[in-house]
Amino acid sequence: MEVKVLTIAEDILGANKEKARRNQDRLDKHGILTVNVMSSPGAGKTSLILRTINGLKPKTRVAVIEGDVASRIDADKVHQQGVPVIQINIPGGCHLDAGMTENALNNLPLEEIDLLLIENVGNLICPAEFALGEHKKVMLLSLPEGDDKPYKYPLMFTEADIVLVNKLDLLPYLDFNITAFSQAVTGLNPKVKISPVSCKTGEGLETWFSWLEDEIRKMKNRHS
Amino acid sequence: MEVKVLTIAEDILGANKEKARRNQDRLDKHGILTVNVMSSPGAGKTSLILRTINGLKPKTRVAVIEGDVASRIDADKVHQQGVPVIQINIPGGCHLDAGMTENALNNLPLEEIDLLLIENVGNLICPAEFALGEHKKVMLLSLPEGDDKPYKYPLMFTEADIVLVNKLDLLPYLDFNITAFSQAVTGLNPKVKISPVSCKTGEGLETWFSWLEDEIRKMKNRHS
Repeated sequence: MEVKVLTIAEDILGANKEKARRNQDRLDKHGILTVNVMSSPGAGKTSLILRTINGLKPKTRVAVIEGDVASRIDADKVHQQGVPVIQINIPGGCHLDAGMTENALNNLPLEEIDLLLIENVGNLICPAEFALGEHKKVMLLSLPEGDDKPYKYPLMFTEADIVLVNKLDLLPYLDFNITAFSQAVTGLNPKVKISPVSCKTGEGLETWFSWLEDEIRKMKNRHS
Repeated sequence: MEVKVLTIAEDILGANKEKARRNQDRLDKHGILTVNVMSSPGAGKTSLILRTINGLKPKTRVAVIEGDVASRIDADKVHQQGVPVIQINIPGGCHLDAGMTENALNNLPLEEIDLLLIENVGNLICPAEFALGEHKKVMLLSLPEGDDKPYKYPLMFTEADIVLVNKLDLLPYLDFNITAFSQAVTGLNPKVKISPVSCKTGEGLETWFSWLEDEIRKMKNRHS
């Protein structure tokens, strides 16, 4: 029997954009660079955020919004670093949206923040479809997930401004072709920046820190 | 500043159940044990399916439904094993549902199947909420995802009949506490079976094969 391919169209996009634009205006007014952090479950979003808080301090004042279906495990880890953090729980939901983000912004000290990192729900699909008001999107793909993911979850890779290939420390134990992966991502998104990192050892993170510092500088210049 | 926790209720459940019940009646009539295979992206669903086809043949006639946002990579791998396979693509969707499953059943030779494996979209959230007509749910959690996942994605662990802890070959390189993980899962779902496996090396898969063979036998006895 031949392989049959059935294609089923489904529109799950909401009327989220206008609210996201209002959030962005508000963040712009305060000169807060806002980055939407997306990945599969367990790819290393929280580890990246903890590394970033420590890599950029004391120059950059970071705040964090944590999105999860359940639990406050990640928010508690961030809180221990002494930065403002809001945990959003979404029972049954699979992504953050602009309304939830607005709610969190109402609870953050906006005049004291240079960089806002929003950790989305662990999911390679829906978070790419819902703008929050962020200026940039970073996605993490961890090596154990496999180098075929750009073919299976193309929108996430198309939408990202920067792709961090995490868990580089596991490379010797895996069949992951970084060149093939990078070619697949660039095929979807020619302008994207791709950077291999290990949030466990710290390897490669300077590139990410420099990229963020550049973007924060541009934001400050635009709004000064 | 203290951690603030905002809880946002969201109802994304559809009127999917009646259709799922009809699918199950149809599968029962043919005596086909049907298993919904769920995990995060890249946790090893396709590898498990390929191992299962080869582990159970020639005694058990397997067929496969492959769910993905895009691509037919997985269906092509299954097709190479010489078993019937249907690829369902769902642009913008994050889970299979009973209607898509019915569509696939219409395209499978139901009188020639003992075991139907349905590979859901890689996602730890929505697939747990939509019945397809399956008799059993297996979920894979791969070690690199971390042992805190039951707290963050509780529904998936609550709904599973069996949890396979995959990529056991990577255990020496990770901080993953299998005992703590198993306790967290059992806390959510006291009757669940938990079994560590490596779909790369084959380690631990006999337990999964025996479990499946038992369930297939029960199904045949009920419908003979």
